[in-house]
Amino acid sequence: MTARLAPLLLALSLAPSALAEEAKSAVPYPAGYRQWAHVKSMVIYSEKHPLFASFGGLHHIYANPEALRAYVKGGSFPDGSVIVFDLLEAKDENGAWVGGERKLLGVMTKNRTRWKATGGWGFEGFKGDSRTERLVSDANAQCFGCHQQQKDNDFVFSGYRP
Amino acid sequence: MTARLAPLLLALSLAPSALAEEAKSAVPYPAGYRQWAHVKSMVIYSEKHPLFASFGGLHHIYANPEALRAYVKGGSFPDGSVIVFDLLEAKDENGAWVGGERKLLGVMTKNRTRWKATGGWGFEGFKGDSRTERLVSDANAQCFGCHQQQKDNDFVFSGYRP
Repeated sequence: MTARLAPLLLALSLAPSALAEEAKSAVPYPAGYRQWAHVKSMVIYSEKHPLFASFGGLHHIYANPEALRAYVKGGSFPDGSVIVFDLLEAKDENGAWVGGERKLLGVMTKNRTRWKATGGWGFEGFKGDSRTERLVSDANAQCFGCHQQQKDNDFVFSGYRP
Repeated sequence: MTARLAPLLLALSLAPSALAEEAKSAVPYPAGYRQWAHVKSMVIYSEKHPLFASFGGLHHIYANPEALRAYVKGGSFPDGSVIVFDLLEAKDENGAWVGGERKLLGVMTKNRTRWKATGGWGFEGFKGDSRTERLVSDANAQCFGCHQQQKDNDFVFSGYRP
């Protein structure tokens, strides 16, 4: 093997599907997030709510340690912060809303250099319990358009509930 | 001072209120629980629900590391397990239930020797955001009477939501 062939062989060793995923979005699935700190929760249960069509259900927000520190002290989130929006179906059981199947897992991850065009945040959604089926093809249109109104809060909607 | 006086003086140096607290319940306030793992949540919003009068609102369950391991693998909880029931007012905002003020903080802590009469669990409740105002004067009547029906689940109602 000549030295010239090495980079080509290295590239070929990456599976085409992995390359395609990388092209779509570099936001990784947030492995282990269920044991991160819990920020807050909400049940969007009625069509009266403007987000019912997109995000109806019981959702929980989780923060990795970097994001948690920023939530607690306020101010902007440092690179490496990851925030998870875990959306479950909400089931009405005898006068109580309880969580059902997972609808989607939303992820925001901060890297000012990589995601300059969307406020320094990478956005992704994973369908149901899948770690590979991605929902975001245009972060600007699907996510940032709405998050932009939260510019004064570093584009984050949720606040930490003590 | 004679050696005989020392124990008496030691006893007097404990404030009477601290002794009274100890007599009522030895379950400590679960400092730092907001950063423990989140087990699950529920909104009890209507009088239709049998627990509405006692526990109406948005509640979250948190587990310390010992309790979390037992939740995940199943089976009984080891001594040292602490489970927190964090109950907030639930406010209906435009078709969504959101958390309001804290109503109470319920705590179960496991020590098979100390709390033999109540399934190995010590029970306590703290009013609102207080770390000292205790709600449980008779754990058997106020807590264990109901938890007893969960004997096959080590007297715990909640299950971990993956």
